Amino acid sequence: MTDRPDNMDARRGALVLFSGGQDSTTCLAWALSRFERVETIGFDYGQRHLVELTVRPSVLDGIRAVSPEWNRRLGEDHLLNLPVVAEISDTALTGEVEIAMLANGLPNTFVPGRNLLFLTVAAMLAYRRGLTVLVGGMCETDFSGYPDCRNDTIRAMQQALSLGMATDIRLETPLMWLDKAQTWQLAQELGGEQLVELIRLETHTCYLGERHLHDWGRGCGHCPACELRANGYRRFVGN
Amino acid sequence: MTDRPDNMDARRGALVLFSGGQDSTTCLAWALSRFERVETIGFDYGQRHLVELTVRPSVLDGIRAVSPEWNRRLGEDHLLNLPVVAEISDTALTGEVEIAMLANGLPNTFVPGRNLLFLTVAAMLAYRRGLTVLVGGMCETDFSGYPDCRNDTIRAMQQALSLGMATDIRLETPLMWLDKAQTWQLAQELGGEQLVELIRLETHTCYLGERHLHDWGRGCGHCPACELRANGYRRFVGN
Repeated sequence: MTDRPDNMDARRGALVLFSGGQDSTTCLAWALSRFERVETIGFDYGQRHLVELTVRPSVLDGIRAVSPEWNRRLGEDHLLNLPVVAEISDTALTGEVEIAMLANGLPNTFVPGRNLLFLTVAAMLAYRRGLTVLVGGMCETDFSGYPDCRNDTIRAMQQALSLGMATDIRLETPLMWLDKAQTWQLAQELGGEQLVELIRLETHTCYLGERHLHDWGRGCGHCPACELRANGYRRFVGN
Repeated sequence: MTDRPDNMDARRGALVLFSGGQDSTTCLAWALSRFERVETIGFDYGQRHLVELTVRPSVLDGIRAVSPEWNRRLGEDHLLNLPVVAEISDTALTGEVEIAMLANGLPNTFVPGRNLLFLTVAAMLAYRRGLTVLVGGMCETDFSGYPDCRNDTIRAMQQALSLGMATDIRLETPLMWLDKAQTWQLAQELGGEQLVELIRLETHTCYLGERHLHDWGRGCGHCPACELRANGYRRFVGN
């Protein structure tokens, strides 16, 4: 259903899964450059650090400032509560699952399928808001370890959500095949230096919730998310 | 993946979507007659009447009393919180959607896709518990108005959940092609008169949350759910 991504119907409204991070902010800019009406959805699910939630308003303000058109197109931001993620995480693991997860390199507190939950809730909200396109930052390139971010999964979810809500729901994942340097490049193409600087200075990706300023943005500088972001930025500015 | 429903691997563990109603209680009995390990999951999502939640323990006790084997196989009951359903329900409708919903005969507070959410959360919990079969009371026969209960939707969700969690998840819907009389019949075949009486006296289906005792069970006797249940029971005992 997404064979012609550059030939989209701008009259469709889009709901962007927006966490306040680099990827979802780039996705938001991508949606604002294509659709007449764009809303955002975020989830409070007991994240270790609430930084992710507190940067949302400032990133959204920054996005509005990029262009009058984006300001006009950007509608409501929805923040929904998903305590169920923590409830599932607190559920005892069976021995069998525990071993599989350790082999995966994922912590025991990790709840597989989280993105499926986010997409399902987003589709339910989108239905009520009359929006038929969901936009998410899922990406195979850097995080192939997360099966709920893979393209096959996203295509299957699009089918299931469309059937289950008896409406044509489209899932768009503009970052699916990009690496982190290309994601910075996309931001520059969409919103120029102003968007790149907004992402660099305001968005939050760090696993530890730290906000030290580096040349590539804010974060602890050591966690895997910071390393990925720093490496991507260096390749981007090196281009 | 469910071509041979009578040739199941009993060593697989099952998680039953259990609301304390007639349908899900019958599904629980169905699962207990097939799988060595069975757990239950329910959702508190701000139901109009909490009767549905309060009958759960007594129905589960009644199920344990049906046979020592069922008592041995029946494991933990998980009750998870989904305030997100009410949050979405409180979200303003666009004019477009409102019209569509009224044409549907569904109330404005109805949140389409609810069953997709329940299945997704159930799959996430099942993963952590090492259970690979989800059992739900979805049915095309009586409720064809709900697209998230249709067989095509369930098959698509099975595919999406399996891909997204990188594991073989099976969705079983033993009531899919049964009418309400046949659902009573199935209960009798699975657990005899004792199960039929448990369902009749303890389970809750009534939309209004009333518990008056009728020959066909408890409820207000007037709402669509009571009418469906009463008609089914009369056809069942008339057989």
